[in-house]
Amino acid sequence: MTLDRIRHPALHGKVMTATDAARFIQDGMTVGMSGFTRAGDCKAVPAALAQRAESEPLRITLITGASLGHDTDKILADADVLARRLPFQVDRTLRRKINAGEVMFIDQHLSETAEQLRGHHLAPVDVAIIEATCITEDGGLIPTTSVGNSAQFVQQARHIIIEINESVPTSFEGMHDIYNLEERPHRQPVPLTAADQRIGQPHIQLDLDRVAAIVFTREPDSPSNVLPPDAETRAIAAHINRFLAQEVKAGRMPDTLYPLQAGIGTIANAVLHGFEESDFHGLTMYSEVLQDSAIALLDSGKLAFASAASMTLSGDVYQRVIDNMEFYKSRIALRPQEISNLPEIVRRLGIIALNTALEFDIYGNVNSTHVNGTHMMNGIGGSGDFARNAHLSIFVSKSIAKHGDISSVVPMVPHMDHNEHDVDILVTEIGLADLRGLAPRERAIRIIDNCAHPDYREELRDYFNRACQYAGGQTPHLLDEAFSWHTRYLKTQSMKPA
Amino acid sequence: MTLDRIRHPALHGKVMTATDAARFIQDGMTVGMSGFTRAGDCKAVPAALAQRAESEPLRITLITGASLGHDTDKILADADVLARRLPFQVDRTLRRKINAGEVMFIDQHLSETAEQLRGHHLAPVDVAIIEATCITEDGGLIPTTSVGNSAQFVQQARHIIIEINESVPTSFEGMHDIYNLEERPHRQPVPLTAADQRIGQPHIQLDLDRVAAIVFTREPDSPSNVLPPDAETRAIAAHINRFLAQEVKAGRMPDTLYPLQAGIGTIANAVLHGFEESDFHGLTMYSEVLQDSAIALLDSGKLAFASAASMTLSGDVYQRVIDNMEFYKSRIALRPQEISNLPEIVRRLGIIALNTALEFDIYGNVNSTHVNGTHMMNGIGGSGDFARNAHLSIFVSKSIAKHGDISSVVPMVPHMDHNEHDVDILVTEIGLADLRGLAPRERAIRIIDNCAHPDYREELRDYFNRACQYAGGQTPHLLDEAFSWHTRYLKTQSMKPA
Ligand SMILES: CC(C)(COP(=O)(O)OP(=O)(O)OC[C@H]1O[C@@H](n2cnc3c(N)ncnc32)[C@H](O)[C@@H]1OP(=O)(O)O)[C@@H](O)C(=O)NCCC(=O)NCCS
Ligand SMILES: CC(C)(COP(=O)(O)OP(=O)(O)OC[C@H]1O[C@@H](n2cnc3c(N)ncnc32)[C@H](O)[C@@H]1OP(=O)(O)O)[C@@H](O)C(=O)NCCC(=O)NCCS
Repeated sequence: MTLDRIRHPALHGKVMTATDAARFIQDGMTVGMSGFTRAGDCKAVPAALAQRAESEPLRITLITGASLGHDTDKILADADVLARRLPFQVDRTLRRKINAGEVMFIDQHLSETAEQLRGHHLAPVDVAIIEATCITEDGGLIPTTSVGNSAQFVQQARHIIIEINESVPTSFEGMHDIYNLEERPHRQPVPLTAADQRIGQPHIQLDLDRVAAIVFTREPDSPSNVLPPDAETRAIAAHINRFLAQEVKAGRMPDTLYPLQAGIGTIANAVLHGFEESDFHGLTMYSEVLQDSAIALLDSGKLAFASAASMTLSGDVYQRVIDNMEFYKSRIALRPQEISNLPEIVRRLGIIALNTALEFDIYGNVNSTHVNGTHMMNGIGGSGDFARNAHLSIFVSKSIAKHGDISSVVPMVPHMDHNEHDVDILVTEIGLADLRGLAPRERAIRIIDNCAHPDYREELRDYFNRACQYAGGQTPHLLDEAFSWHTRYLKTQSMKPA
Repeated sequence: MTLDRIRHPALHGKVMTATDAARFIQDGMTVGMSGFTRAGDCKAVPAALAQRAESEPLRITLITGASLGHDTDKILADADVLARRLPFQVDRTLRRKINAGEVMFIDQHLSETAEQLRGHHLAPVDVAIIEATCITEDGGLIPTTSVGNSAQFVQQARHIIIEINESVPTSFEGMHDIYNLEERPHRQPVPLTAADQRIGQPHIQLDLDRVAAIVFTREPDSPSNVLPPDAETRAIAAHINRFLAQEVKAGRMPDTLYPLQAGIGTIANAVLHGFEESDFHGLTMYSEVLQDSAIALLDSGKLAFASAASMTLSGDVYQRVIDNMEFYKSRIALRPQEISNLPEIVRRLGIIALNTALEFDIYGNVNSTHVNGTHMMNGIGGSGDFARNAHLSIFVSKSIAKHGDISSVVPMVPHMDHNEHDVDILVTEIGLADLRGLAPRERAIRIIDNCAHPDYREELRDYFNRACQYAGGQTPHLLDEAFSWHTRYLKTQSMKPA
């Protein structure tokens, strides 16, 4: 531990252990923690909190940027510390408790949490716990690998706990771009007009009086755990590349495209890797998370600039970034998630949004969150912020799951995260369906023909034809049959007819 | 007919009959017409078009701002002129053809149509037919009672047909505020930061070379046909007033509130009338349509300014407006619908959005378009532009329809226009459910307790309890029973158990 990282001397006296810092958190409080898709989460205080819960009643509302690393959600869930959790998670143990109704999970558009705090739709944050690279002479907090909602938490919390992570090089200073939205009714336009523009400060300004504790840590982020591309995700990427090339050829987009957004997870990462094989160059990203694929594209020169709220990398790739910090710092900006995902900017820049569906239906409505319509997988994340306002909203999925026992193209989704209006293009390894300008009945034919797996295609056609014949309407459905594929799966572990 | 209204003399030679003007429209073309919820639609050329279709093949794609008056959609549908129609409609005959699959209807977020034309997601507009008050010396077209998508149609069309309506007083000049979005990637922030601000020009600039025809008309708009408030809509309005007063008292909003948006139709109009009985003052509207209620609020001084894309009034109220034009012109701005509904501005201003649901489910997902999940009523309109980005998204509905045979609160909506993330407050005449910060299971209890009609409340509770017990999950549902209320209604004309 070296006090060099606390450049404002008035704060030196605030250094303490994680256990001591955790005492600022009381039963019933709302806690805002840094951390977005495993990146830049705080490492020490949450564990101390879980430990305290062994001996005293301690249940909190936990708000983060997005998901956490270090099994923090598991540890807190196991210790029964989480009464409420928002806005996103990916942990298996927490997921089980959410689906059992034991933790109240408020699934949110990721651009909206800060806004709801600011507007007092949510109880205010009592304590903020924020990971930092260092604290500047002027009391500015330099974040680490994510920004998430940290700026809003710091602005609102009564007590601010800072975890200075000594494993993160101080060269991170300058990568962040912190822009604070004004309170209404004095809100101004956000002046960003290009993905590579910086509009704010490199730090989150601290109110020193509210800094309650500083804790030193040295554990790195949990590395990304996405799987490498496979035959299906490579096919999906190829369909998308071909389609975008056609768009450029038809004069509908410049040859550097519009800024790309890519969702979290294995499939989105693989699709983005696909751009390495394309002829595109001078691309930009205006996204929520940067995964390994984004760094690979920066390395290859295909990508000129990447903007996001976090950087979730595997160990090797993270090492490459910190070893070549000047290269990456001039090509990456990390922003608050309400800016990375802001509808205003998504629409202005004309983002090409690439998000992943668990399943979609014959009319192009998407379920990305609820398995069988009831059980939460992760959450909607930022997909709605992007899909609604994008120039092109693309959703991808493999055509089947669970070795073919599940078709990802179904008659009707039993939970809807994105409806037809927000879904322009659907892609599976089978093919791509361009749905722009089509009415629902036309969408159905194109989706079934182009995206459904052959094992399920005829049955989908049959459903659609009978729905047109017996029910009719703008969006024909047989209500007593619409979920029969899902109920069959629940009974027999397969959507295939017996 | 007087040429005084064509102040640019080079255009005098373009005057012709509607029949002659209609000849610019050929089979297979895309036609963009002015008109938004009965206001400012073109009156003569559509009828001439229908007549021509009697003797020659003539099928077009018709794009408007929103719905039309003068039975234009009925006349064109009866004449089989409409192959495709977007983005909104309310006509009974057209609705029948849409639901029979005979007209392809592309239901859209109303802010997005112009964007999709600009981005070439839709086939370009061949001919624009725009109602005007007059044409200025500089070739500026002054619209009448709506702006809708007219500016975009004029920008894109190869041939522009103008209908000058002599029944509209020329004093309308100055009421409109036309702002054009730049092409990407050069798009700038839209500089509007308050509902009463003017940021553009009072006219739509014409390219004189593309003006193909000018037709004179004198028929006024079809008057608004909404029904007066009744006991239920008055009760809904009272719940909303009480709630907003509490929000102000709790310091969550200024006492002039944030700008109000109110949807189309009888219920939204009645709810807005309810503000006349409130203690609020200095209110503003940033909405899509102004109905009679907005004018009444301006008259009473409760409303300081109203911004919208159109003005759909009853005959008397319209007369009052034109008789006191200077008063209203300083208090009303009519804008392009992509500006009145722009997510960027809705979010910046922190709109309070009031929209109407056909039905909603126990988790607060809203169906505002598809009766029984299949049959199109009107369309999603601008409700999604506002609900997604509002500071407060309120949806209203009577708790029952069809004399109690339909419950507007159902286990699961069979079509979803707005999902839980975009619905903060639900109101029926029974009561108001404040859903902010709640997880789905908590939302269910509050919605059933506060909004459901007593005749259906116990059955909803029973469904929810059994769904929690047998299915569980973040959003418990019994998939083989979720639509049983709707299928029962289809069989017995009542959702009530036999
Ligand atoms: C949809 C989502 C879960 C896919 O994740 P992924 O890692 O790319 O995809 P995978 O194919 O590995 O699927 C993840 C799991 O879902 C399962 N799955 C896929 N389709 C399924 C379906 N239709 N029904 C049930 N399970 C399904 C897979 O079998 C896999 O299960 P496993 O973890 O037990 O192996 C993920 O993208 C997500 O949570 N999206 C929502 C949030 C979002 O879009 N955020 C980005 C905004 S920037
Ligand atoms: C939802 C909507 C149809 C309600 O219209 P309204 O005029 O306020 O309300 P009404 O109570 O008169 O209802 C209209 C009809 O729907 C029927 N209805 C209401 N609830 C119903 C339900 N759950 N199932 C079936 N029919 C229902 C009514 O009985 C009435 O039928 P009728 O015309 O045969 O008498 C209308 O607001 C709409 O189209 N909304 C979607 C678009 C939108 O929100 N635009 C505004 C954005 S700015």
